[in-house]
Amino acid sequence: MEAMDTSISTEEKKRRLEQKVFVNRSLTLENIKCYGFDMDYTLATYTSPDYESLGFEQIRDRMVSIGYPHEILRYKYDPSFPTRGLVVDTTYGNLLKVDSNGNILVCSHGFQFLKGEDIHKYYPNMFIQRDDTDRFYILNTLFNLSETYLYACLVDFFTGCTRYTNLLKGFQHGDLLMSYRSMFQDVRDAVDYTHDTGSLKELTTKNLEKYVVRDPNLPVLLTRIKEVAKVFLATNSDYYYTEVIMTYLLESNVKPGSPRKSWRSYFDLVVVDTKKPLFFAEGTVLRQVDTNTGKLRIGTYTGDLQHGTVYSGGSSDIVCDLLGVIGKDILYVGDHIFGDILKSKKRQGWKTFLVVPELTKELQVWEERKNIFEELKCLDLYLAELNKHPDTTSQEYRDIGSIHMRMKLLTYRMDMSYGQMGSLLRSGSRQTLFASQLMRYADLYSSSCLNLMHYPVNYLFMAPPVLMPHEVVSEASPDFVSSPLTLNSYPLTNKN
Amino acid sequence: MEAMDTSISTEEKKRRLEQKVFVNRSLTLENIKCYGFDMDYTLATYTSPDYESLGFEQIRDRMVSIGYPHEILRYKYDPSFPTRGLVVDTTYGNLLKVDSNGNILVCSHGFQFLKGEDIHKYYPNMFIQRDDTDRFYILNTLFNLSETYLYACLVDFFTGCTRYTNLLKGFQHGDLLMSYRSMFQDVRDAVDYTHDTGSLKELTTKNLEKYVVRDPNLPVLLTRIKEVAKVFLATNSDYYYTEVIMTYLLESNVKPGSPRKSWRSYFDLVVVDTKKPLFFAEGTVLRQVDTNTGKLRIGTYTGDLQHGTVYSGGSSDIVCDLLGVIGKDILYVGDHIFGDILKSKKRQGWKTFLVVPELTKELQVWEERKNIFEELKCLDLYLAELNKHPDTTSQEYRDIGSIHMRMKLLTYRMDMSYGQMGSLLRSGSRQTLFASQLMRYADLYSSSCLNLMHYPVNYLFMAPPVLMPHEVVSEASPDFVSSPLTLNSYPLTNKN
Amino acid sequence: MEAMDTSISTEEKKRRLEQKVFVNRSLTLENIKCYGFDMDYTLATYTSPDYESLGFEQIRDRMVSIGYPHEILRYKYDPSFPTRGLVVDTTYGNLLKVDSNGNILVCSHGFQFLKGEDIHKYYPNMFIQRDDTDRFYILNTLFNLSETYLYACLVDFFTGCTRYTNLLKGFQHGDLLMSYRSMFQDVRDAVDYTHDTGSLKELTTKNLEKYVVRDPNLPVLLTRIKEVAKVFLATNSDYYYTEVIMTYLLESNVKPGSPRKSWRSYFDLVVVDTKKPLFFAEGTVLRQVDTNTGKLRIGTYTGDLQHGTVYSGGSSDIVCDLLGVIGKDILYVGDHIFGDILKSKKRQGWKTFLVVPELTKELQVWEERKNIFEELKCLDLYLAELNKHPDTTSQEYRDIGSIHMRMKLLTYRMDMSYGQMGSLLRSGSRQTLFASQLMRYADLYSSSCLNLMHYPVNYLFMAPPVLMPHEVVSEASPDFVSSPLTLNSYPLTNKN
Amino acid sequence: MEAMDTSISTEEKKRRLEQKVFVNRSLTLENIKCYGFDMDYTLATYTSPDYESLGFEQIRDRMVSIGYPHEILRYKYDPSFPTRGLVVDTTYGNLLKVDSNGNILVCSHGFQFLKGEDIHKYYPNMFIQRDDTDRFYILNTLFNLSETYLYACLVDFFTGCTRYTNLLKGFQHGDLLMSYRSMFQDVRDAVDYTHDTGSLKELTTKNLEKYVVRDPNLPVLLTRIKEVAKVFLATNSDYYYTEVIMTYLLESNVKPGSPRKSWRSYFDLVVVDTKKPLFFAEGTVLRQVDTNTGKLRIGTYTGDLQHGTVYSGGSSDIVCDLLGVIGKDILYVGDHIFGDILKSKKRQGWKTFLVVPELTKELQVWEERKNIFEELKCLDLYLAELNKHPDTTSQEYRDIGSIHMRMKLLTYRMDMSYGQMGSLLRSGSRQTLFASQLMRYADLYSSSCLNLMHYPVNYLFMAPPVLMPHEVVSEASPDFVSSPLTLNSYPLTNKN
Repeated sequence: MEAMDTSISTEEKKRRLEQKVFVNRSLTLENIKCYGFDMDYTLATYTSPDYESLGFEQIRDRMVSIGYPHEILRYKYDPSFPTRGLVVDTTYGNLLKVDSNGNILVCSHGFQFLKGEDIHKYYPNMFIQRDDTDRFYILNTLFNLSETYLYACLVDFFTGCTRYTNLLKGFQHGDLLMSYRSMFQDVRDAVDYTHDTGSLKELTTKNLEKYVVRDPNLPVLLTRIKEVAKVFLATNSDYYYTEVIMTYLLESNVKPGSPRKSWRSYFDLVVVDTKKPLFFAEGTVLRQVDTNTGKLRIGTYTGDLQHGTVYSGGSSDIVCDLLGVIGKDILYVGDHIFGDILKSKKRQGWKTFLVVPELTKELQVWEERKNIFEELKCLDLYLAELNKHPDTTSQEYRDIGSIHMRMKLLTYRMDMSYGQMGSLLRSGSRQTLFASQLMRYADLYSSSCLNLMHYPVNYLFMAPPVLMPHEVVSEASPDFVSSPLTLNSYPLTNKN
Repeated sequence: MEAMDTSISTEEKKRRLEQKVFVNRSLTLENIKCYGFDMDYTLATYTSPDYESLGFEQIRDRMVSIGYPHEILRYKYDPSFPTRGLVVDTTYGNLLKVDSNGNILVCSHGFQFLKGEDIHKYYPNMFIQRDDTDRFYILNTLFNLSETYLYACLVDFFTGCTRYTNLLKGFQHGDLLMSYRSMFQDVRDAVDYTHDTGSLKELTTKNLEKYVVRDPNLPVLLTRIKEVAKVFLATNSDYYYTEVIMTYLLESNVKPGSPRKSWRSYFDLVVVDTKKPLFFAEGTVLRQVDTNTGKLRIGTYTGDLQHGTVYSGGSSDIVCDLLGVIGKDILYVGDHIFGDILKSKKRQGWKTFLVVPELTKELQVWEERKNIFEELKCLDLYLAELNKHPDTTSQEYRDIGSIHMRMKLLTYRMDMSYGQMGSLLRSGSRQTLFASQLMRYADLYSSSCLNLMHYPVNYLFMAPPVLMPHEVVSEASPDFVSSPLTLNSYPLTNKN
Repeated sequence: MEAMDTSISTEEKKRRLEQKVFVNRSLTLENIKCYGFDMDYTLATYTSPDYESLGFEQIRDRMVSIGYPHEILRYKYDPSFPTRGLVVDTTYGNLLKVDSNGNILVCSHGFQFLKGEDIHKYYPNMFIQRDDTDRFYILNTLFNLSETYLYACLVDFFTGCTRYTNLLKGFQHGDLLMSYRSMFQDVRDAVDYTHDTGSLKELTTKNLEKYVVRDPNLPVLLTRIKEVAKVFLATNSDYYYTEVIMTYLLESNVKPGSPRKSWRSYFDLVVVDTKKPLFFAEGTVLRQVDTNTGKLRIGTYTGDLQHGTVYSGGSSDIVCDLLGVIGKDILYVGDHIFGDILKSKKRQGWKTFLVVPELTKELQVWEERKNIFEELKCLDLYLAELNKHPDTTSQEYRDIGSIHMRMKLLTYRMDMSYGQMGSLLRSGSRQTLFASQLMRYADLYSSSCLNLMHYPVNYLFMAPPVLMPHEVVSEASPDFVSSPLTLNSYPLTNKN
Repeated sequence: MEAMDTSISTEEKKRRLEQKVFVNRSLTLENIKCYGFDMDYTLATYTSPDYESLGFEQIRDRMVSIGYPHEILRYKYDPSFPTRGLVVDTTYGNLLKVDSNGNILVCSHGFQFLKGEDIHKYYPNMFIQRDDTDRFYILNTLFNLSETYLYACLVDFFTGCTRYTNLLKGFQHGDLLMSYRSMFQDVRDAVDYTHDTGSLKELTTKNLEKYVVRDPNLPVLLTRIKEVAKVFLATNSDYYYTEVIMTYLLESNVKPGSPRKSWRSYFDLVVVDTKKPLFFAEGTVLRQVDTNTGKLRIGTYTGDLQHGTVYSGGSSDIVCDLLGVIGKDILYVGDHIFGDILKSKKRQGWKTFLVVPELTKELQVWEERKNIFEELKCLDLYLAELNKHPDTTSQEYRDIGSIHMRMKLLTYRMDMSYGQMGSLLRSGSRQTLFASQLMRYADLYSSSCLNLMHYPVNYLFMAPPVLMPHEVVSEASPDFVSSPLTLNSYPLTNKN
């Protein structure tokens, strides 16, 4: 949070914002004795939307090969549709955007966005019980974007296909019932299939230039960190894939004249096949990887840390033991809000850094559309004022109706600036479940882990103080929450 | 959030604050079709600390009668010690104050408050896994204050008693091992005993004037609400006790000349024995109470709502059916953060109002000691500045040390203003688990449900907008987070 | 299994049978280093049916006091109705007698015994899924006889009461639904109530002569066993009740001139409040009982075994440690097929002795009605023969019908000799669930533990060899299973 | 149970025995409206030991390819070692043969059979808690024989390998710990690997003549049954494999001149991918198989039964609905004691027929060695007599010792006649867990399902009556249990 000269250009201001690391809870880098990194979408950024497109096509083709109609091959991946963090309702086939308490913010059926009264038919209370994980599935990771979109494609296709009758919970075709539930299961199975057969990985490793972003700053950052702390890599990927990706990221773009250095030498410890989130609980057996053959050594590794050795499995407790650190000394950098961040924080008390690639776009839209948010805030206040007067006149009633319509319009406009499903983090003035988890579990967050570059290694990230409403009210200066809004101050009619 | 004239007196300002209802999420009373109330500590406020004292003596005496040494009869209840929301570590006998992620804020062993290095011995990571409910027990309600204190008394007594040897997990006396775990179980059993035998209730109902606060505004509030919405009472207490307490609250203090009205006529529905939090999930069988005998009618009630009828058991779903409302139409007012608020919000999507009697004191201390908090904030910023300079001089190192000591002192001073365990809601600049749950699950909160009186029945409670760090930073004015703090601007040495 | 002189009288033969200990798995007393005893219904035999009557009245009166109609006070306990081991179907209110695989042998609704086609309506497959413990409740102990009968009374009453409409799952009366499920819950609650308030125990201890059978052989047996092995008592009863009962059994009937000896001196270890079956798993905290006051010492007992000391709680592992024995050295004698026998056998590998007071009657009926069983066996064989002939004549078809009717009649007659619900162990030629559990888990069984008196202390109880069907067939002599039954050899028509 | 002429030859008697169906609970074929068959090891018999050898080599080679030492390639499958139903103790690496209560009958470590005192070191109580399924794994099926033997090979190899240090729970080699637990996990993973990759199936289908037994009686049996009842196939195998195997069994060996008939026409319903035992509980989605492509149709099949259609998934409830039968009308024929027999019996009340290929050998040994069993029985009786005399002389003490030694020798001799691990069903006079489950859950059993051929379609299988010990004793003729054994009647010394 350096000083900002107000004279800097908008472009420069934007650049600076994109390079910032944001702070939910204060954290001194000086106290961090160990940095841990996830690989996929953390050290290795995948080219968007090319990579999601590739994933989409893999599972789409698999669906057809298990019997889904050939017509669905016509669908192409559209990055403007899905947002991360959506919830699938496997009973009714809807995609839901919800807040932290399960209130529904946006609801789509296929590509159709439902209006209030239509949402109400499915969910009379405009609310879901998130804990019902048998029914609701949260698409939390960037890997999930492809299947989010594919599921919408399927619902879209069958809804419009005259061969199928639309039922509440699925589609009927002769003796066959295609429930939304079984369709989602088929999608999940197809995802697992492409993962198990390694077809997605194979295509990625054959086209590294196309699908993986290589940044020359990565070796610089890791080198710099390793001078002051221990560094480890903990990835759910297998050894073979990790080897290919990390070699590409750290060995293939050395500056001319520099000595070639093994990617493993950037780390004190490399662990593959970590099975996060299990890794943060009881974990699995720790084995050595034979880096010549890529095979696991049999038996459980029980010795001390050996440099250059790659391990498979294990648990966060074992990592702490091997590196000689305790949880609060570790800053773990990852992209998975649940598997990387929530679990390492809640189970082990680690410090956490969430990588949110969408943040670049979020900041940009926020910057450009802040005026919409400001107007929403004003309308809120204005409504509050109107409501306080028990003797509402008929004119005022009309005003209230106009304001509500205007607020919906503004929220919609703001949402559309991000994409069809709106922002990852908010819908109008309300925050998403993802945003609330980000605030609870990630101490730091940024659009890329490389942004750590811009801070000294002993930097103190300071969180803005969190005040509770009674503390805010109590200390509020008159111009913030308490100034008497003049009813006429907002020229409502002119704006509509 | 009415306008405040800056010319009002401090006294008046304080009074206004105490009567305020605070807002975590915006809520329009106009949309509320149904108000639900808990009884104990919500409609019925118990005199503090007399009532906690009574509870303490009941369980203390029970402990002696099951064999604990007579010496513990010397302990008297000290309201300055316990704070609500503490966590008992049944393994080591400590009382812990933690934040929402399980980081330890304060730790006491008996009445001794442990310092950092001593806490570190028990908890190397300064952190607990809250999910381990077999080991950690959260003392969430005002009813728990007595046992919180009693457990501290026991630990204090045995630690100092020469007959017992102190072990890590308890005390040894000859062949007997008194583990902290079994001691806590004994306390819980004693609490259940006083509850099951009804001895606490009996003493309360015999001394209503002493133990229950009667406010003439309560019937006024309920009458006013009932004119615009449905009203129900849902209490875990049994019918007999409910009858005595509610009669006292609503029938015994009518203004001269007013017609005497049954307490039940204030409600559309009265449900006793609700077994919250089970009530918000599958619930139990709904039965009628015979209000003449206080006995349950056999069988399950399956008919429509009958006015003046009292029911026992049931579930939140049944209540909605009987009253013809859905979850988002209901504002439920209760004092139990878990059983009343978290569960009704998370499972049923109800609107929630948490009664926090401690808020009166919290607001008062906050008002008086705000300067301490301001100083803490400045020191934080100052530290951040110092840390940014890689070329720290030895003078600056000394400054850093001084600042840390000063911050500890300030936090301690602020904590002590609330009581020995500090505030219910924060420790210095860090929030407690209770505070974070309050913010997540309670839409509104106030020191008393009676404060609803001060708002029109169609009031719109507007929450301050919640901005995420990247949104704050992005919109921050230069004087808030980004101005270059002059290192000399804070006259540190003079203050120490 | 001593030699029996064939010249002995029938009376003498009967007496000898009643005094026998029967053997499921061979067991050498010489290897038993430790004997454990349950108290209720094992050392302390309760007078039947007086004691069941007393229990029945206690819970019947409690039902009325919680609102059940006064008419049910007219019901008196009828010992001829219930059999131990029945299964309550809480959905349909039926009492079921089932075999080990869940096939229904007998079904009653109230006091009405259902015929095949009526059972079929409730249970199309004549079968229940016993594992559904939420629906089916097994009345395993002699203590359960009272509630078994009471539940039948309630179903009988409401079925016949004109105020109530009979529904499939209960009874309707105006707005009230009395489900079979809630009625059974009420019965269970009433049983717990009489247990918790101690009213049944109080009446028992005030009328020991009436309700508890005192046998002068008990001290003799215990003395004799203690000379060769360790002896312990492990009862779920509390100390006070144990003290009263054991004093009555062991101290109040000493022969004139004998020195009075404390009942506790008959045992190496006395444990009360054992919470079986939990006792055979993780158990609870072991505490000392202060035998002067009857109160528990606080803390956990961690010392060695002290003679004359009474303990509370603990576990089977602790008992083994204190006594210095391992599971296979212990013969545990109890009356509860699940809590005493199945659990000690399956979890701890103890040797087991099941006390089955009903055995006296079972043996007597078996002896008297063996001819019926023999006839059933012959009819079975006869049917088998008939079925083998593919060219069945119409005469033979008629024969088959007659045989089936005759077999039902014989089964019914045999059942009625035991009581309305038939034998504890069989229904015609089929064994009950109770019988199969007895055979699997009890090494020995007898009508009373006192029958151990009749065997030398180093006796080898030898089980009859268990042969599998292919082994039996293989070794069968011609006259057993393979002789061609002459179709005319069984003078069927004459018998009908 | 036809008459047996005592004049028939031994050879003929043996043949008749092998073709017998044995009966645990009486069952009338006339009442069976529907026959269900498993495929593997039921309709399709695999050539033993060729097929087990093939499986062994597959997983052995896989172990080496994941890093196990090449030396284990030297091991060849030895059919004389493993017996079905053994229990692996994954903590200590032992193979255990146990009885129904968990008492240990035989214990081997690698190929070394442990003696009493050595077993005692691992299991002081000579007993295991079978319910601890995390530790103990039961090798219940014929498919498990290969891995049973491989695990013994591994333990044998590492125990003898000088590079590894033997520890209680595994082997140490430098920094690597090979725990028995992880070794067993590796074996299980290798088995799953060969299953998932289909390598075993591929080799089988390429060598059908070698690995699958084709019996011309199978089509005859199925045709005969289908004339009187419905017939279905329910296999966990996939469609492709089922198609190959069933075509081979039913279409490739038609008698010259017979019309060629599709294998599917022998069944009213064919279900593949059944996921037993899940099939007998909630099951999975029922889908149609496209018999042209072998692929599943998408969606859930909801129509009526269509002849010639093959289904995938589903549940036993769905099968009953499609065929219009209820559980007790079905006779299900399978080889898996748990997945086929226990579950269909306990959850659904089906009639059950267990195929036990080992029975041929069991009957043969039993026939040949019955004298050993008879001698064991006599020694038992003799010991019982000796034990009854409290005044044992020193001569008698010596006799007892001699008898025990003789009994051990006889048990060992009898066991060895079956193989190194002894009989599937007993060890001396004690029954195995497998035998007790067979008796509880299988109504009928035989060495092959083809033996149903030898019985009329309306045959009544009659079980020998099961008498409880008190019923046996009560009716025993003098020469069975009660005759006074003359102590001198058994010429002990001469025999040793």
